[in-house]
Amino acid sequence: MKVMNWRIERTGYDQNQITSYGNRFLTGNGYMGIRGTLEEYTKEQLAAVNLAGVYDRVGQGWREPLNAPNPLYTCLKVDGEYYRLPDKEAKKHSFTLDFRHGICSRKTVWHTLRGDVCIESEHFADLCDPHIIRMKYAVKTKFHGDIEVLTGIDADVWDINGPHYDEISLQEEDNTLIARATTHEKGDHVYVTEQVTVDFPCEMKTKSDPLTLQHRICFVTEPEREYCIEKTAAVYTDHDGTQAEFLAGEAVRADHAGAYQTGKRRHCEAWERLWAVAEVQITGDDEAMYALNYSIYHLQCIAPRHTDSLSIAARGLSGQTYKGAVFWDTEMFMLDFFLYTQPAVAKTLLKYRIDTLPGALQKAKEYGYQGAFYAWESQEGGYDACTDYNVTDVFTGRPMRTYFKDKQVHISAAIVSGIMRYVNTTGDDSLLTEGGYEVIYECARFYYSLLTKRVDREQYEILDVIGPDEYHERVNNNGYTNRMAKYVLETAAALLAYQAIPHRDGVNRQETAGSEGGWQMWAGRFEEAAEKLYIPQPDKTGIVEQFDGYRKLEDVSIEEVRGRLLNEKEYWGGAYGVASHTQIIKQADVATWMNLFPQDFAKQIMERNWNYYEPRTEHGSSLSACMYAMLACKCDNPDKAYPFFLKSANADLSDGGKEWAGLVYIGGTHPAAAGGAYMTAIEGFAGIYMENGELKAEPHLPKNWSEMRFHIWALEELYEVCVKRPDELQTSYTVTLHKVSG
Amino acid sequence: MKVMNWRIERTGYDQNQITSYGNRFLTGNGYMGIRGTLEEYTKEQLAAVNLAGVYDRVGQGWREPLNAPNPLYTCLKVDGEYYRLPDKEAKKHSFTLDFRHGICSRKTVWHTLRGDVCIESEHFADLCDPHIIRMKYAVKTKFHGDIEVLTGIDADVWDINGPHYDEISLQEEDNTLIARATTHEKGDHVYVTEQVTVDFPCEMKTKSDPLTLQHRICFVTEPEREYCIEKTAAVYTDHDGTQAEFLAGEAVRADHAGAYQTGKRRHCEAWERLWAVAEVQITGDDEAMYALNYSIYHLQCIAPRHTDSLSIAARGLSGQTYKGAVFWDTEMFMLDFFLYTQPAVAKTLLKYRIDTLPGALQKAKEYGYQGAFYAWESQEGGYDACTDYNVTDVFTGRPMRTYFKDKQVHISAAIVSGIMRYVNTTGDDSLLTEGGYEVIYECARFYYSLLTKRVDREQYEILDVIGPDEYHERVNNNGYTNRMAKYVLETAAALLAYQAIPHRDGVNRQETAGSEGGWQMWAGRFEEAAEKLYIPQPDKTGIVEQFDGYRKLEDVSIEEVRGRLLNEKEYWGGAYGVASHTQIIKQADVATWMNLFPQDFAKQIMERNWNYYEPRTEHGSSLSACMYAMLACKCDNPDKAYPFFLKSANADLSDGGKEWAGLVYIGGTHPAAAGGAYMTAIEGFAGIYMENGELKAEPHLPKNWSEMRFHIWALEELYEVCVKRPDELQTSYTVTLHKVSG
Repeated sequence: MKVMNWRIERTGYDQNQITSYGNRFLTGNGYMGIRGTLEEYTKEQLAAVNLAGVYDRVGQGWREPLNAPNPLYTCLKVDGEYYRLPDKEAKKHSFTLDFRHGICSRKTVWHTLRGDVCIESEHFADLCDPHIIRMKYAVKTKFHGDIEVLTGIDADVWDINGPHYDEISLQEEDNTLIARATTHEKGDHVYVTEQVTVDFPCEMKTKSDPLTLQHRICFVTEPEREYCIEKTAAVYTDHDGTQAEFLAGEAVRADHAGAYQTGKRRHCEAWERLWAVAEVQITGDDEAMYALNYSIYHLQCIAPRHTDSLSIAARGLSGQTYKGAVFWDTEMFMLDFFLYTQPAVAKTLLKYRIDTLPGALQKAKEYGYQGAFYAWESQEGGYDACTDYNVTDVFTGRPMRTYFKDKQVHISAAIVSGIMRYVNTTGDDSLLTEGGYEVIYECARFYYSLLTKRVDREQYEILDVIGPDEYHERVNNNGYTNRMAKYVLETAAALLAYQAIPHRDGVNRQETAGSEGGWQMWAGRFEEAAEKLYIPQPDKTGIVEQFDGYRKLEDVSIEEVRGRLLNEKEYWGGAYGVASHTQIIKQADVATWMNLFPQDFAKQIMERNWNYYEPRTEHGSSLSACMYAMLACKCDNPDKAYPFFLKSANADLSDGGKEWAGLVYIGGTHPAAAGGAYMTAIEGFAGIYMENGELKAEPHLPKNWSEMRFHIWALEELYEVCVKRPDELQTSYTVTLHKVSG
Repeated sequence: MKVMNWRIERTGYDQNQITSYGNRFLTGNGYMGIRGTLEEYTKEQLAAVNLAGVYDRVGQGWREPLNAPNPLYTCLKVDGEYYRLPDKEAKKHSFTLDFRHGICSRKTVWHTLRGDVCIESEHFADLCDPHIIRMKYAVKTKFHGDIEVLTGIDADVWDINGPHYDEISLQEEDNTLIARATTHEKGDHVYVTEQVTVDFPCEMKTKSDPLTLQHRICFVTEPEREYCIEKTAAVYTDHDGTQAEFLAGEAVRADHAGAYQTGKRRHCEAWERLWAVAEVQITGDDEAMYALNYSIYHLQCIAPRHTDSLSIAARGLSGQTYKGAVFWDTEMFMLDFFLYTQPAVAKTLLKYRIDTLPGALQKAKEYGYQGAFYAWESQEGGYDACTDYNVTDVFTGRPMRTYFKDKQVHISAAIVSGIMRYVNTTGDDSLLTEGGYEVIYECARFYYSLLTKRVDREQYEILDVIGPDEYHERVNNNGYTNRMAKYVLETAAALLAYQAIPHRDGVNRQETAGSEGGWQMWAGRFEEAAEKLYIPQPDKTGIVEQFDGYRKLEDVSIEEVRGRLLNEKEYWGGAYGVASHTQIIKQADVATWMNLFPQDFAKQIMERNWNYYEPRTEHGSSLSACMYAMLACKCDNPDKAYPFFLKSANADLSDGGKEWAGLVYIGGTHPAAAGGAYMTAIEGFAGIYMENGELKAEPHLPKNWSEMRFHIWALEELYEVCVKRPDELQTSYTVTLHKVSG
């Protein structure tokens, strides 16, 4: 097996790539994400240390996660002149991410009249201590240079809907730089501290202005000697407890020469421990292996390991786009990676949903429903950050009324599905007893309250929703939604039939359905509802209609629809979008449904629907490709799946992703695509599944893949899995599932 | 009582008024409407002889009523030079409509180098023969003029979505000009013939080109002598039977000198007979009396008296706007005028609905419903001319998906209401036995099939509709719609309880609900449905919500909303219109409901809702004002009603009506406003109503009105009604209801 290249290296400097590199070279440790930017970058270049799960809102702007004051800010003066990108053109430049270890580095050489000057630096978000960022910054010149390095905290942070800090206090104390920023909405604090160590004689002063506080390190270089500055920074917030400020100071005060090397070694070891489980080895396709493990890297960067209740934002920790909110992406696209490689993180993600049940109950009530209607864009406490006006009309500049928040009711089902996949994959039912039961019952109660029946018909229907394909708003009987609702009703009925559920925390909430007389009485209702709920069926040609009337819409090619655009940024959906009254859909919808419920359909039906819907799919969401990839595997066609898999795996490696929805910037990393790539590899190509409490595999390897090797956790055992393509003498795949722990 | 001025006279010539005068000076006899244009006008000035109920469609354009080849076309040459408006500026010009007799006339004087030349002309659509148009055209000069009058048929007609004639044959035969035009869609024919008589020596030739056929009448004038040309024209179509072409020729062939005078006298006598019943005399308010009788004039011009089954288009016979289609306007706004003054016409209007039941059954089926879903824009056979894209987006030029056709379900209830008002007002139940019962039951069956029930609630709801206020699309539980549906269900249940219904014409239609086992079994279902159907109730403050969630919409002034317009022609409704997500409504909605069901509400509640909704009403429809006027009367506040009454009565007299919806021209006459003015006068101010088969009055006269006098038919008796304001000695109105026939 070939040794993989675990580096992304880009040489040369292209100013147009600043934004995309910020995502591509991201480092993170689940507590924070550090955009892949250069030390001298400011908010102009979207430098950011994005914090997980800490939000603020200013005025009528969107509520969004905080970017901490940036402790990495560093720039260079040589002979009194600034040398920094993009202002000063470099002679040589390279930018590298070691994604085996989450270390981002750069090397830049500038030409000066007296000779070349070179910077080499690296930084990482410490995997061993979620609060710590470490950086090394080395200067070398070909001449006796008069050098000044300015390094410190830049509190003039990039914000989309900021500024979020009403007050910023900056101070120096025993050589420690301390920033204390107070948020607007709740007056929470963010503390950033840092210390630098140098191993050479220099003059060090402190320089400050209202928004930055810097060490000013002055020295004269010997030619060809490297002058190395090491920095330890700490980031804390009030969410880290009442001692956060003290801890932030302490974290860096013990800093000493050599701390960087020690810290880096431990950090790398921690990454190796992650890869020991998470790495996927593929023989015969280096490109796929590289992209897949790079996708896994991104999932690792944003995995919340520092808490037992937190989820992941749709754009991970790459910034404030999508409001840093948690979507169905987590449960439906990212969860399986964690289930199989770090079940504890999977539990943390789902605990977030359990803990935000009150928000979901509240939301249902506001819309006149019962039970739990989870937030479409969930922030702290399950607050729905989604607004009623989520897109801007490019023609009028007006906000457009969108229905993501009120009508994308399938979100609650995604959470039930996530909980049950956790339980079934890990064999651990603690999540159920710690609140999972109640979530499932309240979600079932929610769907029950959504059900309508035409007075002159027997069947139940779900009207006026948005399915996964967001281009078609306010549709009736979206197949995916109805089938998911049926699943939730069935699941709740089955669990109720099997066990009574005490209220979580012993709290007897008067408003819950359960309190009306206990959940037991609901088992029969849920069961009957699941039976009567209308599920669209294949027509004579085998096609299942995505929603009532879909097949009557204009049947036209994507190219034709694209050709109707009057503005490249205009929204394809909504009431009058170019796709809205055609059969062109944004993303996998029927395909997602079939992928989740393959037992409902003959393979030929699934294949026919794949062939019908895929050409009609714009793939305007990074969630789309992997669903087609997985469904193609279920149709025994891994080669048809392959390009969709690769698209998902390359989502953060390739250029050209959709960065605009109307006039709203939506760029960032794509962890759901990364998770989708992982799912396709493990569940699609390797064909891993659980059946009756047993781990099984039904592989379908793409044509160049001769072998896959990886580890997965299942039922509290770690398995080493090897899937080999049959050689000439064999007729079937060789699968070994070898327990390596347990 | 003061003698009313029955004339509209405009002196001077204003080119900007060409379009509006076309409507204001309209003449008609129910078979056709002649726009109020000058003889020399062509399609450029929107000259048109608009035919009732005869449609054609070309390509993808809207299907619309035909304009016949124009037999009035006439122009003048003096000394070889054309004298015609608007090209040649006139010295004097006046344009007059005698709306007592439906005669339009003009007098124009031009200055020439040799002295003045004067034209005086008049024309009318003959009330005694629906096919006949008569015209007189007199020339007088101050000098020996070398005159040429060109008069004939202009087949180059104004069309909005034409041309509708694939073939036009023009020929002269025995001095008769004959045009035979063949329509595009069905190859139907329109025949226009004409003959002229002159009482002076002249040279008469025929001049023709592909689209016009003219007499060329040349003569030399004696100064100050009047040279008079009289014309009789006839218009027939294949809808008038197989002998239409022959009859069109015969109708004018018998023409002779003096025919004009005889015809005019008979025509005027026929108008006098109409006014003998229809005139409304008001003492104390000449302006109101004038506007009201002018409104009545317009209703008379478009009343179908030549057939027993035809309805009236929303813009009457003023052209092709609104596709010449029949809306709820007829039953809800115009019908009462005919009920009270010409019950036979009322029956004709409703027979049209009975005869178009098959179209309504078909439409319901297409949308997955049962029963009769009448066309929102009804043409021949109940064909729904309404398209799914009824408005054009001013910003993109794209058609906007609108839901008038599929969601404005209250149309069927309007028809039931119309039938029942006919039965209750006339006492004649022939309409029921001639198909009315079946219409009512099928409409009830339609509403029954619309009903939904949330599985966890008992009440029935009607979801996803548009109410009278079209600015808010796809709303749930529109109060007006639900209450009307309840009314239909109750009416059907009561009729069924009282009498079994044989199928109309003895036809046993397999597809009707009635055939499933007879209508009798439906009585109980309709009754139960009416009971369970949710009707919004006043909240604590007395306000009834127009639809679910209306009160949560932005509460903002009309001025503020208008200020948000980026383009004066942009549509206020739809998904993103300036009104759509505010409480600003297009037209009376809750007010219409309360006006129809005052027994449901305390007067204080009605008043409170009037006060709440009226300031939030843009009155973007000419149907709006009269509903507020009538409701104010029901709240005992005629003075509050008065300006709304006047607005309705003046709809076709005043400038500034809404002539655009998006980029679509919607100008024309406003017969629903005219009918609304009549209703307000008779049912609001005079307070006429039927109770237990008895005619009653509860007057509320506006402050300047001391007396109203009018006639109405009720229960097959003609009454002379006189309502007098109490004088100082009295405390209540004096009402006399004097039978003058029966």
